[in-house]
Amino acid sequence: MRTIRWEDGKVILINQKKLPAKISYIHCKNYNRIVRAIRTLEIRGAPAIGVAAAMALALTANNSEAKDREELYNQLERTASEVRATRPTAINLFWALERVLIKARSALGTVEDVKEVVVEEAQEIAEEDVQKNKTMGTLGAALLEDGDVVGTICNAGWLATAGEYGTALGVIKVAHEQGKEISVIAMETRPVLQGARLTAFELRQDGIDVEVIPDGAIGYCFYMGMIDKFLCGADRIVVLDGCSVVNKIGTHTASIAAKFYDVPFYSVAPLSTFDFKHNLNGISIERRSQREVTEVNGHRIVPEGVKAINPAFDVTPPSLVTAIITEKGIIHPPFRDNLRKIISSPD
Amino acid sequence: MRTIRWEDGKVILINQKKLPAKISYIHCKNYNRIVRAIRTLEIRGAPAIGVAAAMALALTANNSEAKDREELYNQLERTASEVRATRPTAINLFWALERVLIKARSALGTVEDVKEVVVEEAQEIAEEDVQKNKTMGTLGAALLEDGDVVGTICNAGWLATAGEYGTALGVIKVAHEQGKEISVIAMETRPVLQGARLTAFELRQDGIDVEVIPDGAIGYCFYMGMIDKFLCGADRIVVLDGCSVVNKIGTHTASIAAKFYDVPFYSVAPLSTFDFKHNLNGISIERRSQREVTEVNGHRIVPEGVKAINPAFDVTPPSLVTAIITEKGIIHPPFRDNLRKIISSPD
Repeated sequence: MRTIRWEDGKVILINQKKLPAKISYIHCKNYNRIVRAIRTLEIRGAPAIGVAAAMALALTANNSEAKDREELYNQLERTASEVRATRPTAINLFWALERVLIKARSALGTVEDVKEVVVEEAQEIAEEDVQKNKTMGTLGAALLEDGDVVGTICNAGWLATAGEYGTALGVIKVAHEQGKEISVIAMETRPVLQGARLTAFELRQDGIDVEVIPDGAIGYCFYMGMIDKFLCGADRIVVLDGCSVVNKIGTHTASIAAKFYDVPFYSVAPLSTFDFKHNLNGISIERRSQREVTEVNGHRIVPEGVKAINPAFDVTPPSLVTAIITEKGIIHPPFRDNLRKIISSPD
Repeated sequence: MRTIRWEDGKVILINQKKLPAKISYIHCKNYNRIVRAIRTLEIRGAPAIGVAAAMALALTANNSEAKDREELYNQLERTASEVRATRPTAINLFWALERVLIKARSALGTVEDVKEVVVEEAQEIAEEDVQKNKTMGTLGAALLEDGDVVGTICNAGWLATAGEYGTALGVIKVAHEQGKEISVIAMETRPVLQGARLTAFELRQDGIDVEVIPDGAIGYCFYMGMIDKFLCGADRIVVLDGCSVVNKIGTHTASIAAKFYDVPFYSVAPLSTFDFKHNLNGISIERRSQREVTEVNGHRIVPEGVKAINPAFDVTPPSLVTAIITEKGIIHPPFRDNLRKIISSPD
């Protein structure tokens, strides 16, 4: 299934806030609707919001009545600014906008030609994402053995990407397709419960056994020997810091516990997730509304007047990461050196 | 405030399931109502359910029309059996039942005299609990410095005990009374949210700053240097295993992360929480209903057909515990040796 797709000048998204109760779609006729969907988590997941960002530019181009290329470029830049302001941490969003804007700037021909290039590039990014995930799934599946129980956090499945496989869950799905018996223990991932709602939904659809745990139980599960490997996605991999993995809040906690119990800990992320420019001080960890913590389904659980701290992401230092699975190969420590090698190697 | 008290032949409990929305009381006229309150978490917290267990015997005695002592003993034993079957992990419950039963067996006089002894012993256990907590609070407060931010899990406050101070939160309250500026980061403590609901409620009532975090965020908070010390209670301390701390699910995860970031990790527990008889294989970790995880306020969050794992407690090995604060003193490693010393020392 596809999370996001271009169809007849519209962008169609699965509304992830309605899952698992209901599979419903949002039909976006203009980029504003995509901006809102990203901000409210109707679409989430680093690769997926990268594709959504590109699609926002595609809608801008498609709807444009610009009289010349420069006017179109200005419109695209305005959209890009608004999209950049939605969520600061996942780098794929910035990467996808940059890629489409560069393509637009370097396109030849009339304004209509440029519009077409933008729409095609957005669709190309979506297609490539699906292909990269499939490649990562195949590479990563070699790390899983028949009978493995895999721990995971948040949702790094097809819902978090353009569709079909996903990143961390893609590895599990390919291993499952290869006939390995794999089951999953999913951290529920408070406050937004992407593990309980989305990962459980996806894996059940794919016929893969999954059990949900409260996030605090991850240490107990390692202690009890219930988990053989841990797989997560990534929202940004900070290369200058030796490949720190910025991912959903709770990932770092899980990584420390995995290390303590010698459980391999893998991050699965396409190269578009790697940040080669900033160090940790240069990136922003999104703090989301306290209400995501203080309320569940509109019902207040925390006493009035008490505040919550709600960082959407955390940082896992490279020393706690066993390997990073990319579409160009599996990177082992030292990550920066080995990343350089796979990037410079021919396909 | 008192969590549980004896009044005119009835036991009055605060209904903790209604907090923080509403302060309401349950009036128990017979022991069955206490059994139900323990099972459904209307009363929870290891010391509090110890007191509640004793009170169940007090109600049994008080309501008894036994014609002789043996008949009364049989009634008390039947009640004790039912209470023992409610929750298997917190040892204070077994300890309190044992203490009252021994007192009853050794009492002199008529059946009426024995009934009176049982009622008095239950009240004595409640009073002692309050005093012990105050003592632990005073001893533990010496470990906290002005300006400390203390992390905590679940609720180890007055609601978890007979009242007034509590165990881990008692330490914080005494430090606060001494004029130290202490603030708290409370893990929300899924699935039952005792941190978000009860700890936040208590501390706010006492004028102590508290912020709530999703459980997964504990590693991030240590990483960011936001927490100076971590304090928790205990449901059972397994002496034969070198003083492993059995406590609310999530404690072990927090203890690993605290160790990784060199944050002192303290358990605050009266000696009635220490199990001198069993090793870890001999104790039972309660698994509660999956619905505590799969539903929040009656709203299902996990897809139909997907299971949850819901252990109520976990085990923190002694190597991760900095010290244990008891009413007889603060115990440092090696815990078994030092425990022996404080127990054999005069008061």
